[in-house]
Amino acid sequence: MKLAVIPGDGIGPEVVAEGLKVLSGVLPSVQTTEYDLGAARWHRTGELLPDSVLRELREHDAILLGAVGDPTVPSGILERGLLLRLRFELDHHVNLRPARLYPGVAGPLAGDQAVDMLVVREGTEGPYVGNGGILRKDTPQEIATEVSLNTYFGVERVVRDAFERAHRRPRRHLTLVHKTNVLTHAGQLWSRVVEEVSMEFPDVSVAYCHVDAAMIYLVTDPGRFDVVVTDNLFGDIVTDLAAAVSGGIGLAASGNLDVSRTNPSMFEPVHGSAPDIAGTGTADPTATVLSVALLLDHLGLPDAARRVEAAVAFDLATRQPGAVGRTQAIGDRLAALASS
Amino acid sequence: MKLAVIPGDGIGPEVVAEGLKVLSGVLPSVQTTEYDLGAARWHRTGELLPDSVLRELREHDAILLGAVGDPTVPSGILERGLLLRLRFELDHHVNLRPARLYPGVAGPLAGDQAVDMLVVREGTEGPYVGNGGILRKDTPQEIATEVSLNTYFGVERVVRDAFERAHRRPRRHLTLVHKTNVLTHAGQLWSRVVEEVSMEFPDVSVAYCHVDAAMIYLVTDPGRFDVVVTDNLFGDIVTDLAAAVSGGIGLAASGNLDVSRTNPSMFEPVHGSAPDIAGTGTADPTATVLSVALLLDHLGLPDAARRVEAAVAFDLATRQPGAVGRTQAIGDRLAALASS
Ligand SMILES: CC(C)[C@H](C(=O)O)[C@@H](O)C(=O)O
Ligand SMILES: CC(C)[C@H](C(=O)O)[C@@H](O)C(=O)O
Repeated sequence: MKLAVIPGDGIGPEVVAEGLKVLSGVLPSVQTTEYDLGAARWHRTGELLPDSVLRELREHDAILLGAVGDPTVPSGILERGLLLRLRFELDHHVNLRPARLYPGVAGPLAGDQAVDMLVVREGTEGPYVGNGGILRKDTPQEIATEVSLNTYFGVERVVRDAFERAHRRPRRHLTLVHKTNVLTHAGQLWSRVVEEVSMEFPDVSVAYCHVDAAMIYLVTDPGRFDVVVTDNLFGDIVTDLAAAVSGGIGLAASGNLDVSRTNPSMFEPVHGSAPDIAGTGTADPTATVLSVALLLDHLGLPDAARRVEAAVAFDLATRQPGAVGRTQAIGDRLAALASS
Repeated sequence: MKLAVIPGDGIGPEVVAEGLKVLSGVLPSVQTTEYDLGAARWHRTGELLPDSVLRELREHDAILLGAVGDPTVPSGILERGLLLRLRFELDHHVNLRPARLYPGVAGPLAGDQAVDMLVVREGTEGPYVGNGGILRKDTPQEIATEVSLNTYFGVERVVRDAFERAHRRPRRHLTLVHKTNVLTHAGQLWSRVVEEVSMEFPDVSVAYCHVDAAMIYLVTDPGRFDVVVTDNLFGDIVTDLAAAVSGGIGLAASGNLDVSRTNPSMFEPVHGSAPDIAGTGTADPTATVLSVALLLDHLGLPDAARRVEAAVAFDLATRQPGAVGRTQAIGDRLAALASS
């Protein structure tokens, strides 16, 4: 297994080190190559993602990314030039984001709320395509546009993937989240595709929820969701709220998958580079370790994935309340549990 | 004061009756004309918003709407043909949505969270313009687009309004919510306008928050927000979450304002027509009554507005825990309190 590693900025390298510790514990054969990308490289060389690096990345079985970004880089530069470029170039059309409230984790909601959902967010279309522009800049007649592109090809493959995942889960329930009553063109395509693909999955029950209503349900009744399929922008919004109600983005894992396996998929914690705590040894590596579980699952090693997940669940259930975790200590414990 | 009233469907007529009870208590001179619009009329006549009705509506000082909609009407028909058509035809560019967790109201969040924010949502642009289309429908080459239109004219007027409101509030804080790192064209325009208008309001402190991060803050630290200004779609999403964390859309009021006063503004509860409880006399009219307070404020009657709000605050603080409200009883109490 050849893994490309992009530690990135801030706490990125710290959490990635722990992720790799856990990974090599369960998969000793893993070979890693590090790539220096992110804010630091951009400051030093002006480079975001050189073509030669992209070519090398393609030669790997998967990519593990820590976090990139720094307040000193103008907004949009690393996002469009590195993170989104990777997703688009490597055709990461399935952006997989589980949200689970683990026993022992205090969520922000009052009462007992069970959260165990899997958001399948489209990753290569929608309002993220960068299509649009500005006309008559800096005049009172200025107009700025953003175009959301949705193709049958792109929607069908992600909807199909979501149905397959729903079919493999105990509750077999899928919810389309969109805003079909306002975005009627894209909404029509999404609804039609969900209806069409659902015919092939008669055992999966299907629901629809407007994105605004989803906000309410996520804080009053998150247990109603099992698999959620949604577009790129709604997925961005829904997954941060889903992460928040399941204990915070400090625990949220993600996979950027090319499910056709033409390109390597990329796994990363949802959190950012948190420059304020970088170097203090207090960053929680759990989201990275859970991303490693997604990586193992994607590589066809479900048993190893299950062991890593179980290690996280055990660790979270038995952490001392209020104890501030030390990055390395948590990594050591998770690695020991996962390979025991 | 000439008020057009659109009771609408489901619980709409029930909550509107109580809103009018409170309104006529504090403003005996109000003259109302009812307009029959919504699902019932559409079923009966196929009409959504006849031009003659739109012309008559324009002759009023304001509009009070209950709720429209019914599961028997295909999604999108009433939204685009009636609700959004009203907003666009009457140039309701400031969609005003306060979210306040009143003492005595149980929110969904654990711990003591103070929520007292005002979302100023743009109402006539963004992805709501209906611009877009479908190419090669029902083929594997189908493409659906949605175009978000953002003009300097449209952004500037709503940002200015938000600053004016922030300036009049004790905390004088304004947050722009957007996704400038991905929607770079529209994001650039919004950011530039906020920066520009902020020069005229040196006493208002300004923050920026990505829409996905706003999801997290709204459930972990909603108290950080004072005035939020945002685009039409982000506003739709943020206001439902803000309403949820302040006790639910059963309490959420809104005003669709033409702040130039060329056209009548429209006031409505954020909730829908709730056909499941229509006719049972249990719908909570509080959101409608709070919308009446927004109406009074807009019409230049801030003292009357304050009395109505105070009546609601008193009622919520003293409601029997668990007592199911009766629509009329709540309306009677609020009317008595507000005109006492
Ligand atoms: C950093 C940004 C481009 C990214 C996104 O919007 O997808 C992030 O918010 C995420 O969810 O991975
Ligand atoms: C009904 C719908 C068109 C509307 C919107 O999306 O604006 C509603 O959700 C709202 O927030 O008033």
